[in-house]
Amino acid sequence: MGRVTERRRVVRLRDGRRDARPDALAAEEPLEMRVGGRALTVTMRTPGHDFDLVAGYLVAEGIVATGEDLPALRYCAGTNAEGINTYNVVDARVARPETVPVSAYRSLLTSSACGLCGAETVDAVRKRLPYDLALDPLTVTPDLLYSLPDTLRAAQRGFDATGGLHAAGLFTADGRLLCVREDVGRHNAVDKVIGWALREGLLPLHEHLLMVSGRASFELAQKAAMAGIPLMAAVSAPSALAVDLAEESGLTLIGFLRGRSANVYAGAHRIA
Amino acid sequence: MGRVTERRRVVRLRDGRRDARPDALAAEEPLEMRVGGRALTVTMRTPGHDFDLVAGYLVAEGIVATGEDLPALRYCAGTNAEGINTYNVVDARVARPETVPVSAYRSLLTSSACGLCGAETVDAVRKRLPYDLALDPLTVTPDLLYSLPDTLRAAQRGFDATGGLHAAGLFTADGRLLCVREDVGRHNAVDKVIGWALREGLLPLHEHLLMVSGRASFELAQKAAMAGIPLMAAVSAPSALAVDLAEESGLTLIGFLRGRSANVYAGAHRIA
Repeated sequence: MGRVTERRRVVRLRDGRRDARPDALAAEEPLEMRVGGRALTVTMRTPGHDFDLVAGYLVAEGIVATGEDLPALRYCAGTNAEGINTYNVVDARVARPETVPVSAYRSLLTSSACGLCGAETVDAVRKRLPYDLALDPLTVTPDLLYSLPDTLRAAQRGFDATGGLHAAGLFTADGRLLCVREDVGRHNAVDKVIGWALREGLLPLHEHLLMVSGRASFELAQKAAMAGIPLMAAVSAPSALAVDLAEESGLTLIGFLRGRSANVYAGAHRIA
Repeated sequence: MGRVTERRRVVRLRDGRRDARPDALAAEEPLEMRVGGRALTVTMRTPGHDFDLVAGYLVAEGIVATGEDLPALRYCAGTNAEGINTYNVVDARVARPETVPVSAYRSLLTSSACGLCGAETVDAVRKRLPYDLALDPLTVTPDLLYSLPDTLRAAQRGFDATGGLHAAGLFTADGRLLCVREDVGRHNAVDKVIGWALREGLLPLHEHLLMVSGRASFELAQKAAMAGIPLMAAVSAPSALAVDLAEESGLTLIGFLRGRSANVYAGAHRIA
């Protein structure tokens, strides 16, 4: 557990030359998440901060909203062929297991009523958002925005070692970095940050900012909104659907945040 | 269907200045994949080449291996509230539906036998590989490798417009680009390329090369191996687990392929 990087031998080609040496790579292993002993999903993730990951995933799925909804997390005592605990299965105890929708178990329901399938599909990916982000009074200056990427980048130790990890950072309204998490999966990095906040008793994350190192997909924007975060910024591009969700939910969505420039795709009233 | 980009209004911050204009963004919509009318999974994808995407996904899941295994693909007649077909549900007819494992339907089996859970989890993500890639006689020169990123980049039209799309390219052994596909999801871009090849009757892809625009995760390396591809190259870093899979399966795995340099993480004997 906590194996963020692993060493492997690499043959380096540099123009005409060729040499071999050890190299640090991002660790990646499957994590099975369970609720009350029942398998919920398996995600490929970088080991470490697994309880944060599970807690954040449960927030994104709408299964828990605060720390009181999640009284216990534990590793299952699974072992590999050598008898060593894999630390690759986490079981969550939730306060109201009866509220976990059957669809959360990724066992998609079969339907032969094809006339409804488009609507069903959208239902399957859109969550009911628990907060009205439009009510959040957060405003930020452009200078504060411009400071976020450097602050996040300085905290990305795994990226420094491997060049192969995404990062997510949670910031206060005055630009202070509260938590950074890295992972081979962009969505996992966000889940780990939000799960950390839940376990610290900080949810909902009103007047907080989320910064991600890559692109801003629909799924990431929805994860921010599910946690009550009113502003998400990304180093790279958002998708059109992420922008639509941001507009509907009151989320301020910023892309291409680099140097002293940024694109604001929704909620520009929050930029002073 | 085929909406690779969409336009949205953006407020641009440039140091002290601020202006508004329309911007092209990557389209992202859910696609529900069905086999014989039964929902298999939902993925967020960029619309277009949906049949390729479904075909490639089924190859990666081990459900089909050649075009003969997949006699038909069709859009379900789902409509949205305005009565317009969403083209967001595709149904596949497979030649041997009885061979589709129950686990493929993402309805993970519940188990209280926690002592086995580590092994179960690895089983859930590792596929039985249908080809022994070590037998593939492919060799390439460093110069051929160095040519791949520029060739792929020149074909990335969606990235030019949005900056927000991943790409995958399939190449012949002499470096000719056969097919390029772009998507908001890295795994989708690879599925689309492999699905295209299946529908063209090219599987298994012995003596072919796969190049991806981002990182090389375990999942992407496994997709290449499931299609019989002996060499995968990535612009960015691989994960440690991707390297392990490459070594076990005989896949040559190359990362940080940029300019006239590359790192070979497995199968370096294929580089002349």
